[in-house]
Amino acid sequence: MALADLEPSERNSEGIATAIGVLKQRFGDQLQTNQSLLEQHTHTMTYIPPQLPDAVVFPNSTEEVQEIVGVCAQHRVPIIPFGTGTSLEGAVNAPAGGISVDMMMMNKILAVNAEDLDVILQPGVTRSELNVHLRDQGLFFPIDPGADASLGGMASTRASGTNAVRYGTMRENVINLTVVMPDGSVVKTGGRARKSAAGYDLTRLIVGSEGTLGIITEMTLRLHGIPENISAGVCQFPSVEDACNTTIVAMQTGLPVARIELLDRLMTEIINDYSGLSYQLKPTLMLEFHGTDAGVAEQLQLFNDIASEFGGSDIQWVHTVEERNKLWKARHDAYYGMLAHRPGCEGIATDACVPLSRLAECISQTIEDVEELELIAPIIGHVGDGNFHVSPLIMMEDADEVARAEEMIERLNLRTIAMDGTCTGEHGIGQGKVRFLRLEQGLGIDVMAAIKRSIDPDNIMNPGKVIRLD
Amino acid sequence: MALADLEPSERNSEGIATAIGVLKQRFGDQLQTNQSLLEQHTHTMTYIPPQLPDAVVFPNSTEEVQEIVGVCAQHRVPIIPFGTGTSLEGAVNAPAGGISVDMMMMNKILAVNAEDLDVILQPGVTRSELNVHLRDQGLFFPIDPGADASLGGMASTRASGTNAVRYGTMRENVINLTVVMPDGSVVKTGGRARKSAAGYDLTRLIVGSEGTLGIITEMTLRLHGIPENISAGVCQFPSVEDACNTTIVAMQTGLPVARIELLDRLMTEIINDYSGLSYQLKPTLMLEFHGTDAGVAEQLQLFNDIASEFGGSDIQWVHTVEERNKLWKARHDAYYGMLAHRPGCEGIATDACVPLSRLAECISQTIEDVEELELIAPIIGHVGDGNFHVSPLIMMEDADEVARAEEMIERLNLRTIAMDGTCTGEHGIGQGKVRFLRLEQGLGIDVMAAIKRSIDPDNIMNPGKVIRLD
Repeated sequence: MALADLEPSERNSEGIATAIGVLKQRFGDQLQTNQSLLEQHTHTMTYIPPQLPDAVVFPNSTEEVQEIVGVCAQHRVPIIPFGTGTSLEGAVNAPAGGISVDMMMMNKILAVNAEDLDVILQPGVTRSELNVHLRDQGLFFPIDPGADASLGGMASTRASGTNAVRYGTMRENVINLTVVMPDGSVVKTGGRARKSAAGYDLTRLIVGSEGTLGIITEMTLRLHGIPENISAGVCQFPSVEDACNTTIVAMQTGLPVARIELLDRLMTEIINDYSGLSYQLKPTLMLEFHGTDAGVAEQLQLFNDIASEFGGSDIQWVHTVEERNKLWKARHDAYYGMLAHRPGCEGIATDACVPLSRLAECISQTIEDVEELELIAPIIGHVGDGNFHVSPLIMMEDADEVARAEEMIERLNLRTIAMDGTCTGEHGIGQGKVRFLRLEQGLGIDVMAAIKRSIDPDNIMNPGKVIRLD
Repeated sequence: MALADLEPSERNSEGIATAIGVLKQRFGDQLQTNQSLLEQHTHTMTYIPPQLPDAVVFPNSTEEVQEIVGVCAQHRVPIIPFGTGTSLEGAVNAPAGGISVDMMMMNKILAVNAEDLDVILQPGVTRSELNVHLRDQGLFFPIDPGADASLGGMASTRASGTNAVRYGTMRENVINLTVVMPDGSVVKTGGRARKSAAGYDLTRLIVGSEGTLGIITEMTLRLHGIPENISAGVCQFPSVEDACNTTIVAMQTGLPVARIELLDRLMTEIINDYSGLSYQLKPTLMLEFHGTDAGVAEQLQLFNDIASEFGGSDIQWVHTVEERNKLWKARHDAYYGMLAHRPGCEGIATDACVPLSRLAECISQTIEDVEELELIAPIIGHVGDGNFHVSPLIMMEDADEVARAEEMIERLNLRTIAMDGTCTGEHGIGQGKVRFLRLEQGLGIDVMAAIKRSIDPDNIMNPGKVIRLD
């Protein structure tokens, strides 16, 4: 067992050299091969060792992507779609070399259809750029994975984050996609209607496929009206179990909470230190409610009633937009806070997601493992969705510590699967969870492999990720 | 051009006879071949002529379905999954003969996980049976296509109906499926977590595939709490356009209306006659609001403000559960009302769904076509989703009238596709819309065909539906 399951690279060196020659002639300075740029295209927020591509190309249009795919297909050269490189599971690594296709030049917002609550854009637009663009129209795009990721990358990994408990994930918020398929054909997966019963759901097939079936070159996303009232605050608890049980009851009651994020005692300490906050060193829920003034007031009352049954403190409200932004920035900076908490460590991301009824039990047993294995592993999570991240902070040169982290992660993922949950609620499979996907999906892996083979028979699209073709 | 695109049957008569012999020996009285039963298994709510299977088999378990599929696969015999037979597009026809697999013996509710808001059940349970079972737990399953369809059939066609505007369609409310694949393997498409980023979305691939990729034998569905307050009523308008524009503004405002159904003047007359109601002969919106008492009061106020801008009447509220049930029963009986309105006619179902901003225009142009072509064609629709059904009431022996209906439907579907909508919001493709799916999906059809071939290379699963393999 190893932390990451990196496929041995069988390089098609001759094909790669030929393809780079052809593409260089066609694309000139849009194609680069300098070492530092290649390194940037695998440098991700992950402990997984980098595997460099042989070139990076920056297309400007669907047609240019088609040309690139055509050349790579002809010479059987791996294509690795690249957004902002914030993958946590090695999704942008190049285990067999090949061409990294950096989509960040394709960053135009093409149309905001305010009356249909949708937007058509190119995949290189980041979620922050989109929300800045939308702000004066009273609209927003809710999916928020923390990092300012590209929307194409977010669709590819079926990303979610803090707002998913209320607004769903990329699965629910992608309306259609334009995709360059491995054979160079351009497929639009659907129209802009709110629903459709027209054949197989190609949109949902591409969402979450991590670039292994094609390259997204245009997308239509669902927008939401900015609520009249947004109220955020913090509620602290005697124990993680009390915070979990508050969350479970709130969700079961149908409370439409917009964000409900758990931090354990250690994580609360970490964000205090990193972001200059001064919360009590106790398990914490960070909360946000959206609605009309009256609706939010009703939600707050209901939440308070539930929290007080589990020993929750009075909620400390933040009253200005600046304070609210500071609160959520602290949440989003948790990864950097963890690295600062133990200088020199790597934070190993985990991504367990279980049915809500099993959440408190799953977290409790995981904390027991962390204690037994003498690890430092803070917990943060989107607990309204039953999703939490326990992150062992590991000195990678300490083989014994690495082995203990592996043991903890193995137990966690097997527990999660046994509870009818998943080893990844939102990060994706990439290279890091290939083995656990097999355990989780059983024979479903064969169906996924059959689909992959039928659409990408030469395995040129992001090979070595999600499923391995033998 | 013909109203329905029925594939010529290339019967594998020898294989079918052999398979029936083997299955009869194994399943005894669970397999039937009498003519009236065969006829019942193609008698659907549709104008599409019946094409009979050669036998009907009634499995009791996933293992029995596996055995049936194994025998049919060995002899390359078509398998047609069957629920309640309420398909509108010929989805249960047997164009090349074969075995109808009637799932109605598999009608057990296996577990209600109230704390996780989900239910595990067999696919033969109907939506009414499920809701009766759930009622005393304060939970309900919202998807309501009108007919009391089986939940397996509803998943297969990605059904929706009146509540979809608030609760989504089967796409959003199926959590996972157990499927017997064409090779006889049993695949569970996912766990019970609220979200997942674990590989390709097999659940969404099977939802809407109309039995062409496998047979659903178990399913987990999302449940919802019965709201504290349910208020229903009727609002009438000077014109269809006014009713549409009220709907569009309500949706754009983010009003979380639970049902918003348009009936044009003729359809209002039809349900008055059929269901003993006495609404004014005007375009009508049937409405329902769900929430807390305060929340519903707020929604009502907002809706009234919008409707009055477009000349809407004061809402006529229904005050008892009985009156509310009567209102929605009248809506659901519209199909029978249409047939009664013109004795001897067939009602040709259409299912246009467009972006909301195009809805009023799409309906107006369609009404112009109906008038120009001198058809009788009432309109009813789930207008909050941009979905409406205009149904020409046709004497099928009148070739000229049939041709005029074909012309109207052709114009409607092409208009819908041109508006970036779909020819089917909720009925599915079946046999009736194969040609329009091609027009709508373009090269996406090739991806669907590649998937179909990779999973069902011998084309035994509901052949001739959704896509045709050449």
